[in-house]
Amino acid sequence: MARQPGVDKFPITTVKTAEKPLPERVADRMTELIIANSYRPGHKLPNEYILAERLGVGRSTVREAVKLLASRNVLEVRHGSGTYVSESTGLVDDPLGFRFYRDKHALAIDLCEIRILLEPPIAALAAENRTEIQVDEMRGLAQRVEDMYAAEIDHSEADVLLHKKIAEASGNIAAPGIAGMLSTAIPLFVDVSRRALRDETITTHRRIVEAIAKGSPRSAKTAMQDHIEHNRVNFLAQTMT
Amino acid sequence: MARQPGVDKFPITTVKTAEKPLPERVADRMTELIIANSYRPGHKLPNEYILAERLGVGRSTVREAVKLLASRNVLEVRHGSGTYVSESTGLVDDPLGFRFYRDKHALAIDLCEIRILLEPPIAALAAENRTEIQVDEMRGLAQRVEDMYAAEIDHSEADVLLHKKIAEASGNIAAPGIAGMLSTAIPLFVDVSRRALRDETITTHRRIVEAIAKGSPRSAKTAMQDHIEHNRVNFLAQTMT
Repeated sequence: MARQPGVDKFPITTVKTAEKPLPERVADRMTELIIANSYRPGHKLPNEYILAERLGVGRSTVREAVKLLASRNVLEVRHGSGTYVSESTGLVDDPLGFRFYRDKHALAIDLCEIRILLEPPIAALAAENRTEIQVDEMRGLAQRVEDMYAAEIDHSEADVLLHKKIAEASGNIAAPGIAGMLSTAIPLFVDVSRRALRDETITTHRRIVEAIAKGSPRSAKTAMQDHIEHNRVNFLAQTMT
Repeated sequence: MARQPGVDKFPITTVKTAEKPLPERVADRMTELIIANSYRPGHKLPNEYILAERLGVGRSTVREAVKLLASRNVLEVRHGSGTYVSESTGLVDDPLGFRFYRDKHALAIDLCEIRILLEPPIAALAAENRTEIQVDEMRGLAQRVEDMYAAEIDHSEADVLLHKKIAEASGNIAAPGIAGMLSTAIPLFVDVSRRALRDETITTHRRIVEAIAKGSPRSAKTAMQDHIEHNRVNFLAQTMT
Protein backbone atom coordinates (compact mmCIF):
# COMPACT_ATOMS: atom_id res chain seq x y z
CA MET A 1 0.00 0.00 0.00
CA ALA A 2 2.80 2.40 0.90
CA ARG A 3 4.16 2.02 -2.61
CA GLN A 4 0.90 2.98 -4.35
CA PRO A 5 1.33 6.78 -4.48
CA GLY A 6 4.56 6.39 -6.48
CA VAL A 7 2.89 4.53 -9.32
CA ASP A 8 2.31 7.51 -11.55
CA LYS A 9 5.44 9.44 -10.75
CA PHE A 10 7.92 6.59 -10.98
CA PRO A 11 6.56 3.98 -13.33
CA ILE A 12 10.00 2.51 -13.99
CA THR A 13 10.85 1.95 -10.34
CA THR A 14 7.43 0.57 -9.64
CA VAL A 15 7.66 -1.76 -12.57
CA LYS A 16 10.96 -3.14 -11.36
CA THR A 17 10.19 -3.53 -7.67
CA ALA A 18 6.82 -5.32 -7.64
CA GLU A 19 6.53 -9.11 -7.30
CA LYS A 20 5.29 -10.31 -10.71
CA PRO A 21 7.82 -11.19 -13.44
CA LEU A 22 9.00 -8.09 -15.33
CA PRO A 23 7.19 -8.75 -18.65
CA GLU A 24 3.92 -9.22 -16.69
CA ARG A 25 4.43 -5.90 -14.95
CA VAL A 26 5.30 -4.17 -18.19
CA ALA A 27 2.17 -5.71 -19.72
CA ASP A 28 0.14 -4.23 -16.83
CA ARG A 29 1.75 -0.80 -17.37
CA MET A 30 0.99 -0.98 -21.09
CA THR A 31 -2.62 -1.83 -20.33
CA GLU A 32 -2.80 1.20 -18.05
CA LEU A 33 -1.31 3.38 -20.80
CA ILE A 34 -3.82 2.07 -23.35
CA ILE A 35 -6.65 2.94 -20.98
CA ALA A 36 -5.19 6.28 -19.86
CA ASN A 37 -4.59 7.41 -23.44
CA SER A 38 -8.00 6.14 -24.55
CA TYR A 39 -6.44 4.09 -27.33
CA ARG A 40 -9.39 2.63 -29.18
CA PRO A 41 -9.70 -0.79 -30.83
CA GLY A 42 -7.66 -0.76 -34.02
CA HIS A 43 -5.35 2.03 -32.78
CA LYS A 44 -1.68 1.43 -33.63
CA LEU A 45 0.83 1.48 -30.77
CA PRO A 46 4.18 3.31 -30.95
CA ASN A 47 7.02 1.06 -32.08
CA GLU A 48 9.14 -1.15 -29.84
CA TYR A 49 11.95 1.41 -29.46
CA ILE A 50 9.63 4.13 -28.27
CA LEU A 51 7.73 1.79 -25.96
CA ALA A 52 10.98 0.46 -24.47
CA GLU A 53 12.17 3.98 -23.81
CA ARG A 54 8.87 5.15 -22.32
CA LEU A 55 8.59 2.14 -20.06
CA GLY A 56 12.27 2.20 -19.09
CA VAL A 57 12.87 -1.43 -20.01
CA GLY A 58 14.66 -3.33 -22.78
CA ARG A 59 13.13 -4.07 -26.16
CA SER A 60 13.07 -7.80 -25.49
CA THR A 61 10.95 -7.17 -22.41
CA VAL A 62 8.57 -5.04 -24.47
CA ARG A 63 8.37 -7.88 -26.97
CA GLU A 64 7.52 -10.37 -24.20
CA ALA A 65 4.89 -8.04 -22.79
CA VAL A 66 3.34 -7.56 -26.22
CA LYS A 67 3.13 -11.35 -26.62
CA LEU A 68 1.39 -11.66 -23.26
CA LEU A 69 -1.10 -8.96 -24.19
CA ALA A 70 -1.68 -10.53 -27.59
CA SER A 71 -2.44 -13.85 -25.90
CA ARG A 72 -5.02 -12.03 -23.76
CA ASN A 73 -6.53 -10.37 -26.78
CA VAL A 74 -5.59 -6.87 -25.63
CA LEU A 75 -3.16 -6.32 -28.51
CA GLU A 76 -2.95 -7.72 -31.98
CA VAL A 77 0.38 -8.08 -33.80
CA ARG A 78 0.04 -7.62 -37.56
CA HIS A 79 3.27 -8.83 -39.06
CA GLY A 80 5.04 -6.30 -41.21
CA SER A 81 2.66 -3.62 -40.02
CA GLY A 82 2.84 -3.13 -36.26
CA THR A 83 1.04 -3.69 -33.00
CA TYR A 84 -2.57 -2.62 -32.63
CA VAL A 85 -5.14 -2.47 -29.87
CA SER A 86 -7.35 -5.51 -30.40
CA GLU A 87 -10.85 -5.13 -31.81
CA SER A 88 -12.27 -7.07 -28.86
CA THR A 89 -10.02 -5.72 -26.14
CA GLY A 90 -9.52 -8.02 -23.23
CA LEU A 91 -12.02 -10.59 -24.40
CA VAL A 92 -10.54 -14.03 -24.25
CA ASP A 93 -12.00 -17.24 -25.48
CA ASP A 94 -13.72 -19.14 -22.63
CA PRO A 95 -12.86 -16.53 -19.98
CA LEU A 96 -14.26 -18.50 -17.07
CA GLY A 97 -12.43 -21.69 -17.98
CA PHE A 98 -15.63 -23.64 -18.66
CA ARG A 99 -13.74 -26.17 -20.77
CA PHE A 100 -11.97 -27.32 -17.62
CA TYR A 101 -15.23 -28.47 -16.03
CA ARG A 102 -15.60 -32.22 -15.85
CA ASP A 103 -19.31 -32.71 -16.40
CA LYS A 104 -20.00 -30.77 -19.60
CA HIS A 105 -23.66 -31.69 -19.78
CA ALA A 106 -24.33 -30.55 -16.24
CA LEU A 107 -22.48 -27.35 -17.09
CA ALA A 108 -24.56 -26.76 -20.25
CA ILE A 109 -27.75 -27.19 -18.25
CA ASP A 110 -26.55 -24.92 -15.44
CA LEU A 111 -25.53 -22.32 -18.00
CA CYS A 112 -29.07 -22.47 -19.39
CA GLU A 113 -30.38 -21.81 -15.89
CA ILE A 114 -28.18 -18.74 -15.61
CA ARG A 115 -29.30 -17.59 -19.05
CA ILE A 116 -32.96 -18.01 -18.07
CA LEU A 117 -32.37 -15.59 -15.20
CA LEU A 118 -30.58 -13.05 -17.34
CA GLU A 119 -31.69 -13.02 -20.94
CA PRO A 120 -35.50 -12.75 -20.70
CA PRO A 121 -35.35 -9.48 -18.70
CA ILE A 122 -32.61 -8.28 -21.04
CA ALA A 123 -34.87 -9.02 -24.04
CA ALA A 124 -37.61 -7.02 -22.31
CA LEU A 125 -35.24 -4.07 -21.94
CA ALA A 126 -34.26 -4.46 -25.59
CA ALA A 127 -37.94 -4.12 -26.56
CA GLU A 128 -37.94 -0.78 -24.74
CA ASN A 129 -34.62 0.61 -25.89
CA ARG A 130 -33.81 -0.84 -29.31
CA THR A 131 -33.08 1.36 -32.31
CA GLU A 132 -34.33 0.70 -35.84
CA ILE A 133 -30.81 -0.19 -36.94
CA GLN A 134 -30.51 -2.75 -34.16
CA VAL A 135 -33.81 -4.33 -35.21
CA ASP A 136 -32.53 -4.63 -38.79
CA GLU A 137 -29.33 -6.21 -37.53
CA MET A 138 -31.28 -8.69 -35.38
CA ARG A 139 -33.43 -9.68 -38.35
CA GLY A 140 -30.31 -10.13 -40.45
CA LEU A 141 -28.70 -12.34 -37.80
CA ALA A 142 -31.85 -14.42 -37.29
CA GLN A 143 -31.95 -14.93 -41.06
CA ARG A 144 -28.28 -15.91 -41.07
CA VAL A 145 -28.95 -18.58 -38.42
CA GLU A 146 -31.79 -19.93 -40.58
CA ASP A 147 -29.66 -19.98 -43.72
CA MET A 148 -26.86 -21.78 -41.94
CA TYR A 149 -29.25 -24.35 -40.55
CA ALA A 150 -30.63 -24.88 -44.07
CA ALA A 151 -27.12 -25.29 -45.46
CA GLU A 152 -26.22 -27.59 -42.56
CA ILE A 153 -23.35 -25.34 -41.53
CA ASP A 154 -22.53 -24.71 -37.88
CA HIS A 155 -24.77 -21.78 -36.93
CA SER A 156 -23.41 -21.20 -33.41
CA GLU A 157 -21.45 -18.06 -34.20
CA ALA A 158 -24.41 -16.28 -35.82
CA ASP A 159 -26.56 -17.44 -32.91
CA VAL A 160 -24.14 -15.91 -30.38
CA LEU A 161 -24.07 -12.66 -32.36
CA LEU A 162 -27.87 -12.48 -32.29
CA HIS A 163 -27.95 -12.92 -28.51
CA LYS A 164 -25.21 -10.29 -28.13
CA LYS A 165 -27.11 -7.89 -30.39
CA ILE A 166 -30.26 -8.28 -28.30
CA ALA A 167 -28.19 -7.62 -25.16
CA GLU A 168 -26.66 -4.56 -26.81
CA ALA A 169 -30.13 -3.23 -27.65
CA SER A 170 -31.05 -3.44 -23.94
CA GLY A 171 -28.82 -0.45 -23.30
CA ASN A 172 -27.02 -2.21 -20.44
CA ILE A 173 -23.36 -1.85 -21.40
CA ALA A 174 -22.24 -4.91 -19.41
CA ALA A 175 -24.88 -7.18 -20.94
CA PRO A 176 -23.42 -7.98 -24.41
CA GLY A 177 -20.16 -9.32 -23.00
CA ILE A 178 -21.94 -11.49 -20.47
CA ALA A 179 -24.62 -12.74 -22.88
CA GLY A 180 -21.91 -13.45 -25.46
CA MET A 181 -19.83 -15.38 -22.98
CA LEU A 182 -22.76 -17.51 -21.82
CA SER A 183 -24.06 -18.35 -25.28
CA THR A 184 -20.57 -19.03 -26.66
CA ALA A 185 -19.93 -21.64 -24.01
CA ILE A 186 -22.93 -23.88 -24.61
CA PRO A 187 -22.25 -25.22 -28.14
CA LEU A 188 -18.81 -26.25 -26.91
CA PHE A 189 -20.41 -28.96 -24.80
CA VAL A 190 -23.67 -30.05 -26.34
CA ASP A 191 -25.06 -30.85 -29.73
CA VAL A 192 -27.10 -27.83 -30.80
CA SER A 193 -27.69 -29.05 -34.34
CA ARG A 194 -30.51 -31.56 -33.71
CA ARG A 195 -33.61 -31.11 -35.77
CA ALA A 196 -35.97 -30.63 -32.83
CA LEU A 197 -33.79 -27.81 -31.58
CA ARG A 198 -33.36 -26.38 -35.06
CA ASP A 199 -37.06 -25.84 -35.78
CA GLU A 200 -37.66 -24.45 -32.33
CA THR A 201 -34.68 -22.09 -32.59
CA ILE A 202 -35.87 -20.66 -35.87
CA THR A 203 -39.41 -20.09 -34.59
CA THR A 204 -38.49 -18.58 -31.22
CA HIS A 205 -35.71 -16.41 -32.63
CA ARG A 206 -38.33 -14.88 -34.91
CA ARG A 207 -40.76 -14.44 -32.03
CA ILE A 208 -38.08 -12.74 -29.91
CA VAL A 209 -36.92 -10.39 -32.66
CA GLU A 210 -40.45 -9.42 -33.72
CA ALA A 211 -41.51 -8.77 -30.11
CA ILE A 212 -38.48 -6.50 -29.70
CA ALA A 213 -39.24 -4.82 -33.04
CA LYS A 214 -42.85 -4.17 -31.95
CA GLY A 215 -41.67 -2.79 -28.61
CA SER A 216 -43.42 -5.45 -26.50
CA PRO A 217 -41.28 -6.13 -23.41
CA ARG A 218 -43.54 -8.88 -22.08
CA SER A 219 -43.69 -10.83 -25.33
CA ALA A 220 -39.94 -10.45 -25.80
CA LYS A 221 -39.36 -11.75 -22.29
CA THR A 222 -41.68 -14.72 -22.70
CA ALA A 223 -40.27 -15.63 -26.10
CA MET A 224 -36.71 -15.55 -24.75
CA GLN A 225 -37.78 -17.62 -21.75
CA ASP A 226 -39.38 -20.25 -24.01
CA HIS A 227 -36.31 -20.28 -26.22
CA ILE A 228 -33.76 -20.94 -23.50
CA GLU A 229 -36.06 -23.27 -21.59
CA HIS A 230 -36.51 -25.35 -24.74
CA ASN A 231 -32.75 -25.60 -25.07
CA ARG A 232 -32.41 -26.63 -21.45
CA VAL A 233 -35.01 -29.39 -21.77
CA ASN A 234 -33.35 -30.60 -24.96
CA PHE A 235 -29.94 -30.78 -23.26
CA LEU A 236 -31.51 -32.61 -20.32
CA ALA A 237 -32.89 -35.16 -22.82
CA GLN A 238 -29.42 -35.54 -24.33
CA THR A 239 -27.97 -36.56 -20.95
CA MET A 240 -30.59 -39.32 -20.68
CA THR A 241 -29.67 -40.94 -24.02
CA MET B 1 -13.70 -29.78 -41.31
CA ALA B 2 -12.02 -32.44 -43.47
CA ARG B 3 -8.94 -32.15 -41.26
CA GLN B 4 -10.78 -32.82 -38.00
CA PRO B 5 -10.56 -36.63 -37.88
CA GLY B 6 -6.76 -36.41 -38.06
CA VAL B 7 -6.47 -34.35 -34.86
CA ASP B 8 -5.98 -37.25 -32.51
CA LYS B 9 -3.91 -39.42 -34.79
CA PHE B 10 -1.56 -36.77 -36.14
CA PRO B 11 -1.30 -34.05 -33.57
CA ILE B 12 2.06 -32.90 -34.92
CA THR B 13 0.85 -32.35 -38.46
CA THR B 14 -2.27 -30.65 -37.24
CA VAL B 15 -0.29 -28.39 -34.97
CA LYS B 16 1.99 -27.33 -37.79
CA THR B 17 -0.56 -26.72 -40.55
CA ALA B 18 -3.22 -24.57 -38.85
CA GLU B 19 -3.24 -20.77 -39.11
CA LYS B 20 -2.34 -19.54 -35.60
CA PRO B 21 1.33 -19.04 -34.66
CA LEU B 22 2.99 -22.29 -33.57
CA PRO B 23 3.26 -21.53 -29.82
CA GLU B 24 -0.46 -20.66 -29.78
CA ARG B 25 -1.31 -23.96 -31.42
CA VAL B 26 0.96 -25.87 -29.06
CA ALA B 27 -0.73 -24.07 -26.17
CA ASP B 28 -4.10 -25.23 -27.51
CA ARG B 29 -2.83 -28.81 -27.79
CA MET B 30 -1.49 -28.67 -24.25
CA THR B 31 -4.85 -27.43 -23.02
CA GLU B 32 -6.52 -30.35 -24.76
CA LEU B 33 -4.05 -32.75 -23.14
CA ILE B 34 -4.69 -31.26 -19.70
CA ILE B 35 -8.42 -31.75 -20.20
CA ALA B 36 -8.13 -35.20 -21.84
CA ASN B 37 -5.87 -36.50 -19.07
CA SER B 38 -8.03 -34.91 -16.39
CA TYR B 39 -5.03 -33.13 -14.88
CA ARG B 40 -6.40 -31.43 -11.80
CA PRO B 41 -5.40 -28.06 -10.34
CA GLY B 42 -2.01 -28.39 -8.72
CA HIS B 43 -1.00 -31.38 -10.89
CA LYS B 44 2.59 -31.19 -12.11
CA LEU B 45 3.21 -31.40 -15.86
CA PRO B 46 5.93 -33.58 -17.43
CA ASN B 47 9.16 -31.66 -18.02
CA GLU B 48 10.00 -29.61 -21.10
CA TYR B 49 11.92 -32.43 -22.84
CA ILE B 50 9.04 -34.88 -22.54
CA LEU B 51 6.47 -32.27 -23.57
CA ALA B 52 8.58 -31.25 -26.59
CA GLU B 53 8.84 -34.87 -27.68
CA ARG B 54 5.15 -35.63 -27.18
CA LEU B 55 4.05 -32.53 -29.04
CA GLY B 56 6.62 -32.95 -31.81
CA VAL B 57 8.01 -29.43 -31.42
CA GLY B 58 11.16 -27.82 -30.08
CA ARG B 59 11.74 -27.03 -26.42
CA SER B 60 11.75 -23.30 -27.07
CA THR B 61 8.25 -23.60 -28.55
CA VAL B 62 7.11 -25.52 -25.48
CA ARG B 63 8.56 -22.77 -23.33
CA GLU B 64 6.65 -20.13 -25.31
CA ALA B 65 3.44 -22.13 -25.07
CA VAL B 66 3.89 -22.54 -21.31
CA LYS B 67 4.32 -18.78 -20.97
CA LEU B 68 1.12 -18.16 -22.93
CA LEU B 69 -0.78 -20.61 -20.75
CA ALA B 70 0.68 -19.10 -17.60
CA SER B 71 -0.49 -15.67 -18.74
CA ARG B 72 -3.98 -17.15 -19.14
CA ASN B 73 -3.85 -18.73 -15.73
CA VAL B 74 -4.04 -22.26 -17.10
CA LEU B 75 -0.54 -23.15 -15.91
CA GLU B 76 1.62 -21.88 -13.11
CA VAL B 77 5.42 -21.94 -13.32
CA ARG B 78 7.06 -22.48 -9.94
CA HIS B 79 10.71 -21.66 -10.38
CA GLY B 80 13.09 -24.44 -9.42
CA SER B 81 10.15 -26.82 -9.11
CA GLY B 82 8.28 -27.19 -12.37
CA THR B 83 5.09 -26.35 -14.22
CA TYR B 84 1.74 -27.01 -12.59
CA VAL B 85 -1.88 -26.81 -13.59
CA SER B 86 -3.16 -23.57 -12.09
CA GLU B 87 -5.43 -23.63 -9.05
CA SER B 88 -7.95 -21.45 -10.87
CA THR B 89 -7.62 -22.95 -14.33
CA GLY B 90 -8.48 -20.63 -17.14
CA LEU B 91 -9.70 -17.85 -14.91
CA VAL B 92 -8.17 -14.59 -15.94
CA ASP B 93 -8.39 -11.28 -14.21
CA ASP B 94 -11.13 -9.10 -15.75
CA PRO B 95 -12.13 -11.68 -18.37
CA LEU B 96 -14.64 -9.49 -20.16
CA GLY B 97 -12.26 -6.55 -20.46
CA PHE B 98 -14.37 -4.27 -18.24
CA ARG B 99 -11.39 -2.06 -17.54
CA PHE B 100 -11.44 -0.98 -21.17
CA TYR B 101 -14.91 0.56 -20.83
CA ARG B 102 -14.90 4.32 -20.89
CA ASP B 103 -17.68 5.20 -18.48
CA LYS B 104 -16.77 3.26 -15.35
CA HIS B 105 -19.66 4.55 -13.30
CA ALA B 106 -22.23 3.61 -15.90
CA LEU B 107 -20.56 0.20 -16.05
CA ALA B 108 -20.70 -0.27 -12.26
CA ILE B 109 -24.40 0.58 -12.27
CA ASP B 110 -25.12 -1.72 -15.21
CA LEU B 111 -23.18 -4.51 -13.51
CA CYS B 112 -25.41 -4.02 -10.46
CA GLU B 113 -28.45 -4.42 -12.71
CA ILE B 114 -27.06 -7.70 -14.02
CA ARG B 115 -26.31 -8.83 -10.46
CA ILE B 116 -29.87 -7.99 -9.37
CA LEU B 117 -31.16 -10.36 -12.04
CA LEU B 118 -28.78 -13.13 -11.10
CA GLU B 119 -27.81 -13.17 -7.46
CA PRO B 120 -31.17 -13.02 -5.64
CA PRO B 121 -32.46 -16.23 -7.30
CA ILE B 122 -29.03 -17.78 -6.72
CA ALA B 123 -29.26 -16.90 -3.02
CA ALA B 124 -32.72 -18.54 -2.96
CA LEU B 125 -31.22 -21.72 -4.44
CA ALA B 126 -28.43 -21.55 -1.88
CA ALA B 127 -31.03 -21.51 0.90
CA GLU B 128 -32.37 -24.77 -0.54
CA ASN B 129 -29.11 -26.55 -1.28
CA ARG B 130 -26.45 -25.29 1.15
CA THR B 131 -24.49 -27.65 3.37
CA GLU B 132 -23.62 -26.96 7.01
CA ILE B 133 -19.97 -26.50 6.05
CA GLN B 134 -20.91 -23.90 3.45
CA VAL B 135 -22.95 -22.02 6.04
CA ASP B 136 -19.95 -21.97 8.38
CA GLU B 137 -17.76 -20.71 5.57
CA MET B 138 -20.27 -17.97 4.71
CA ARG B 139 -20.39 -16.84 8.32
CA GLY B 140 -16.60 -16.80 8.43
CA LEU B 141 -16.42 -14.70 5.27
CA ALA B 142 -19.13 -12.27 6.43
CA GLN B 143 -17.15 -11.87 9.67
CA ARG B 144 -13.95 -11.30 7.71
CA VAL B 145 -15.63 -8.50 5.72
CA GLU B 146 -16.73 -6.89 9.01
CA ASP B 147 -13.26 -7.19 10.55
CA MET B 148 -11.66 -5.65 7.50
CA TYR B 149 -14.15 -2.79 7.49
CA ALA B 150 -13.39 -2.23 11.19
CA ALA B 151 -9.65 -2.25 10.52
CA GLU B 152 -10.19 0.04 7.50
CA ILE B 153 -8.54 -2.49 5.18
CA ASP B 154 -9.87 -3.09 1.67
CA HIS B 155 -12.55 -5.73 2.15
CA SER B 156 -13.33 -6.33 -1.54
CA GLU B 157 -11.61 -9.69 -1.79
CA ALA B 158 -13.44 -11.19 1.19
CA ASP B 159 -16.66 -9.70 -0.18
CA VAL B 160 -16.14 -11.41 -3.55
CA LEU B 161 -15.37 -14.71 -1.80
CA LEU B 162 -18.62 -14.47 0.16
CA HIS B 163 -20.65 -13.92 -3.02
CA LYS B 164 -18.84 -16.82 -4.71
CA LYS B 165 -19.50 -19.07 -1.72
CA ILE B 166 -23.21 -18.27 -1.83
CA ALA B 167 -23.21 -19.05 -5.56
CA GLU B 168 -21.38 -22.31 -4.87
CA ALA B 169 -24.00 -23.28 -2.29
CA SER B 170 -26.72 -22.85 -4.95
CA GLY B 171 -25.50 -26.05 -6.57
CA ASN B 172 -25.33 -24.42 -10.03
CA ILE B 173 -21.77 -25.19 -11.14
CA ALA B 174 -21.55 -22.21 -13.50
CA ALA B 175 -22.72 -19.72 -10.87
CA PRO B 176 -19.58 -19.18 -8.74
CA GLY B 177 -17.43 -18.17 -11.71
CA ILE B 178 -20.04 -15.73 -12.98
CA ALA B 179 -20.87 -14.27 -9.56
CA GLY B 180 -17.15 -13.95 -8.83
CA MET B 181 -16.50 -12.18 -12.09
CA LEU B 182 -19.36 -9.71 -11.59
CA SER B 183 -18.52 -8.84 -7.99
CA THR B 184 -14.77 -8.59 -8.69
CA ALA B 185 -15.36 -5.98 -11.35
CA ILE B 186 -17.32 -3.46 -9.33
CA PRO B 187 -14.74 -2.30 -6.73
CA LEU B 188 -12.38 -1.62 -9.64
CA PHE B 189 -14.55 1.31 -10.68
CA VAL B 190 -16.35 2.70 -7.68
CA ASP B 191 -15.63 3.54 -4.10
CA VAL B 192 -17.13 0.75 -2.02
CA SER B 193 -15.61 1.92 1.25
CA ARG B 194 -18.04 4.72 2.10
CA ARG B 195 -19.58 4.55 5.53
CA ALA B 196 -23.19 4.40 4.31
CA LEU B 197 -22.34 1.42 2.19
CA ARG B 198 -20.29 -0.15 4.94
CA ASP B 199 -23.06 -0.31 7.54
CA GLU B 200 -25.55 -1.53 4.99
CA THR B 201 -23.18 -4.19 3.70
CA ILE B 202 -22.57 -5.59 7.18
CA THR B 203 -26.28 -5.73 7.99
CA THR B 204 -27.46 -7.23 4.70
CA HIS B 205 -24.61 -9.73 4.48
CA ARG B 206 -25.75 -11.04 7.85
CA ARG B 207 -29.39 -11.12 6.70
CA ILE B 208 -28.45 -13.03 3.55
CA VAL B 209 -26.27 -15.57 5.33
CA GLU B 210 -28.78 -16.20 8.12
CA ALA B 211 -31.66 -16.61 5.66
CA ILE B 212 -29.58 -19.18 3.78
CA ALA B 213 -28.63 -20.87 7.06
CA LYS B 214 -32.30 -21.10 8.05
CA GLY B 215 -33.23 -22.49 4.65
CA SER B 216 -35.54 -19.59 3.71
CA PRO B 217 -35.32 -19.06 -0.06
CA ARG B 218 -37.63 -16.04 -0.08
CA SER B 219 -35.81 -14.18 2.68
CA ALA B 220 -32.45 -14.99 1.12
CA LYS B 221 -33.69 -13.66 -2.21
CA THR B 222 -35.10 -10.46 -0.72
CA ALA B 223 -32.01 -9.82 1.38
CA MET B 224 -29.73 -10.23 -1.65
CA GLN B 225 -32.01 -7.98 -3.68
CA ASP B 226 -31.87 -5.26 -1.01
CA HIS B 227 -28.11 -5.63 -0.77
CA ILE B 228 -27.33 -5.16 -4.44
CA GLU B 229 -30.04 -2.53 -4.91
CA HIS B 230 -28.52 -0.51 -2.08
CA ASN B 231 -25.14 -0.70 -3.81
CA ARG B 232 -26.68 0.41 -7.08
CA VAL B 233 -28.40 3.41 -5.52
CA ASN B 234 -25.19 4.35 -3.74
CA PHE B 235 -23.20 4.22 -7.00
CA LEU B 236 -25.89 6.31 -8.70
CA ALA B 237 -25.44 8.89 -5.94
CA GLN B 238 -21.67 8.86 -6.53
CA THR B 239 -22.16 9.81 -10.18
CA MET B 240 -24.21 12.84 -9.12
CA THR B 241 -21.49 14.24 -6.86
